[in-house]
Amino acid sequence: MIENLWRGIAIISASEDGFKAGEIVKEKLKRFEIPVVHFKYKDADIETVWRCYDAIIFVMALEGATRIICKYAKSKTKDPAIICIDDKINYVIPLLGGHWGANDIARDLSVILNSTPIITTAAELKGKLSAEKIANILVAKILNPENIVKINAVLLRDEYVCVDGVDINVTFPENIRINSEECNYIVSLRNDKEYKDKIVVWLKPLKISIGVGSKKDVKIDEIRDGIYKVLERLNLKRERIGIIASIREEVKKIADEINVKFRLVNEEEINNFTNPCLTPPSKTLIEVGLKGVAEISALIAGGINSKLILRKIAISRNSTIAVATYEGE
Amino acid sequence: MIENLWRGIAIISASEDGFKAGEIVKEKLKRFEIPVVHFKYKDADIETVWRCYDAIIFVMALEGATRIICKYAKSKTKDPAIICIDDKINYVIPLLGGHWGANDIARDLSVILNSTPIITTAAELKGKLSAEKIANILVAKILNPENIVKINAVLLRDEYVCVDGVDINVTFPENIRINSEECNYIVSLRNDKEYKDKIVVWLKPLKISIGVGSKKDVKIDEIRDGIYKVLERLNLKRERIGIIASIREEVKKIADEINVKFRLVNEEEINNFTNPCLTPPSKTLIEVGLKGVAEISALIAGGINSKLILRKIAISRNSTIAVATYEGE
Repeated sequence: MIENLWRGIAIISASEDGFKAGEIVKEKLKRFEIPVVHFKYKDADIETVWRCYDAIIFVMALEGATRIICKYAKSKTKDPAIICIDDKINYVIPLLGGHWGANDIARDLSVILNSTPIITTAAELKGKLSAEKIANILVAKILNPENIVKINAVLLRDEYVCVDGVDINVTFPENIRINSEECNYIVSLRNDKEYKDKIVVWLKPLKISIGVGSKKDVKIDEIRDGIYKVLERLNLKRERIGIIASIREEVKKIADEINVKFRLVNEEEINNFTNPCLTPPSKTLIEVGLKGVAEISALIAGGINSKLILRKIAISRNSTIAVATYEGE
Repeated sequence: MIENLWRGIAIISASEDGFKAGEIVKEKLKRFEIPVVHFKYKDADIETVWRCYDAIIFVMALEGATRIICKYAKSKTKDPAIICIDDKINYVIPLLGGHWGANDIARDLSVILNSTPIITTAAELKGKLSAEKIANILVAKILNPENIVKINAVLLRDEYVCVDGVDINVTFPENIRINSEECNYIVSLRNDKEYKDKIVVWLKPLKISIGVGSKKDVKIDEIRDGIYKVLERLNLKRERIGIIASIREEVKKIADEINVKFRLVNEEEINNFTNPCLTPPSKTLIEVGLKGVAEISALIAGGINSKLILRKIAISRNSTIAVATYEGE
């Protein structure tokens, strides 16, 4: 589960002991190769963190976490997975999103932290999908949101829903029929199809924009490998790539090879760019006077409505990659 | 700790399994001889429960409890102790009020339920008193609320505070000096004293009104014993009793013996009386057409501003007692 948290995990700690514990959690999470950012509570913009990360780990007492959560929680379908870990890392407690992944995240965490996961949901309550969740997994946009409620009601009752036009390798729960139309309720990626007398949520597959950060010594082979690894992790075919962007001209070579656009970005553009979901810059970046590279490049190339779906990850000592989605033509 | 929850514990369960678990919790709590009421979530007026009980146990998954809590939580000093127990009674999780007793309650509960208490507060964070808490313990009213903040700031820093004029047997933390005036900050029950250059929160001891419910066959000796037991539990001397009230005239005998007023209440008064904090009537009471007896008697006799501090408890098969506070002359 944790390895799918492409938009990253935010750790938020309150006390000094909590900060130390948070650093341990961050270190142990490295093996999952997903982005992890650790904020001190007093410095964190929780409103933004809530919107920008897939999971938040509060390292503090439950009461503190609960009182913070109460300020930001919206609904079961909108909130990120929320986990609480006490300062002594005795317990890993899923607080919100138990049915949407927080339980699995807590179990994964408890193994690497050698602590106890506190699972309080009934065993028979499995994770239930929603139309929004399906769209996220398929990296697609919902074209007719007015039908979301109807499909979600069916999903909640564990009744059959067909997902048609799936072009990726994905495992869904048993009540989801992949690439079938033998259901009354359908989520469809196919714009070439009509379904008579069915309730359909229409999805449009999104294009992805890949941002590449690299030291001056550009290692093209490493970067190419990194891009393919990232595609694999996101379960996406190469055809989904719409554009590659970098501050390094050399990266254009890869874009040419796979026949997608290339966007060269410069330092000025980067430092003028703003987006609340950007990962805070590392010390090294601050020293060289840059707000970021991979994420900003992906978002600049993806255009004004693009959204970060994979926070920057280091693919080698030299290079980082981030991925944003955008609507193609 | 649990035995001090005189205003009672409200259990709130959501699912059918939760209800069964809640009934088990209720049954096991009997040994503490404190009032316990079990509500189904769909029927519960949580706003009122939040205000009227000393502790609330949510029997459900943490996410459900958290989302409910978020609607009602106010602040560390105002909220009751909140505990969450999962439907399988595996865990007893203090959610709010960890420093004010919820941890101790959870430990007590986990022993009787044979489950695991999930304590997430740092060990060094002991329960801290507040002026309001001291007033509650001493069954007194704060006369100058404007000084509460100053005293609470000192209590929060674990600095010395004197509590002067204590007439009950009570154990306070080490930084509280009982019946001393050798502090800069004083909580005083003595209206015969002046403290020069000190910050004082003045308390006025409240009188108590004792309501007695009894079957027709009135057992005076049982009731008398019950009243003395209740005084002991509340840590109060006999002199605090201002009035005794009952639907049974025979109870006047006890009032006469200890030289306090007696108030006879009748069924009509009882059924016309309303107060949001009343314990829901038992089946037996509903059958005989009464909204309640002990609590309503105590509140009628205590007058319009009286407050329930001990929910009705059965002192024998025949009789119940409830206690309310009110301001004497």
